[in-house]
Amino acid sequence: MSESVNSWLDRLRFDADGLIPAIAQDAATGTVLMFAFMSRESLQETLRRGEAVYWSRSRGRLWHKGEESGHTQRVIEIRTDCDNDSILLKIAQTGGIACHTGRQSCFFNRLDGGVWTPADPILKDPREIYS
Amino acid sequence: MSESVNSWLDRLRFDADGLIPAIAQDAATGTVLMFAFMSRESLQETLRRGEAVYWSRSRGRLWHKGEESGHTQRVIEIRTDCDNDSILLKIAQTGGIACHTGRQSCFFNRLDGGVWTPADPILKDPREIYS
Repeated sequence: MSESVNSWLDRLRFDADGLIPAIAQDAATGTVLMFAFMSRESLQETLRRGEAVYWSRSRGRLWHKGEESGHTQRVIEIRTDCDNDSILLKIAQTGGIACHTGRQSCFFNRLDGGVWTPADPILKDPREIYS
Repeated sequence: MSESVNSWLDRLRFDADGLIPAIAQDAATGTVLMFAFMSRESLQETLRRGEAVYWSRSRGRLWHKGEESGHTQRVIEIRTDCDNDSILLKIAQTGGIACHTGRQSCFFNRLDGGVWTPADPILKDPREIYS
């Protein structure tokens, strides 16, 4: 088992900081929900839990997504690309909210005529999420 | 005009190498097609052309996606996330093939029982693409 786990990890190309870019996509709707980084350990933890665990660069530690908000991400599929240097997680988003602003997706700012414009609705007050 | 362009670029947070992670998603189907990096200049070029222009780290230069293969990416929408440190391009993929292996998406390797398994069909022989 551990041999098999190492073998799939060894194929991946981590950067100088030991991280690999990761995209979380809603498995049902295809919406791209967020972008983050993963470490070897966070990938192992993701597989063990069946829920997305990222590496938080700002906190300098493993980040089990939803640990505070409850908005965990159940992993349906893990993919890597042709260069083995990025990860795509297809997930089921608990509560339908991935963003700390209370929106479904973190990618809510759209470039409209040279101006970043919030283009998606706030589904839940962030104060409710983190209370 | 150039003032407006600078203003939207100034909101983005580029890394120490002057790059920002970018996800290309098929605007019609939602399929995540590829992951790459962009520089300020590549973002400006993307807007100017209306087609995705990345920064190729391996070649150390701007990379107008499709310049060799013809598989350009017409940009429908540009988004950034809540932290302004990653980009989502919603694009129309010329020829329906984003990957140099001849597949629709670069994310064709799926983790199945601890083994990376090619999960998507090859739509076109790569030798035909680059001939």
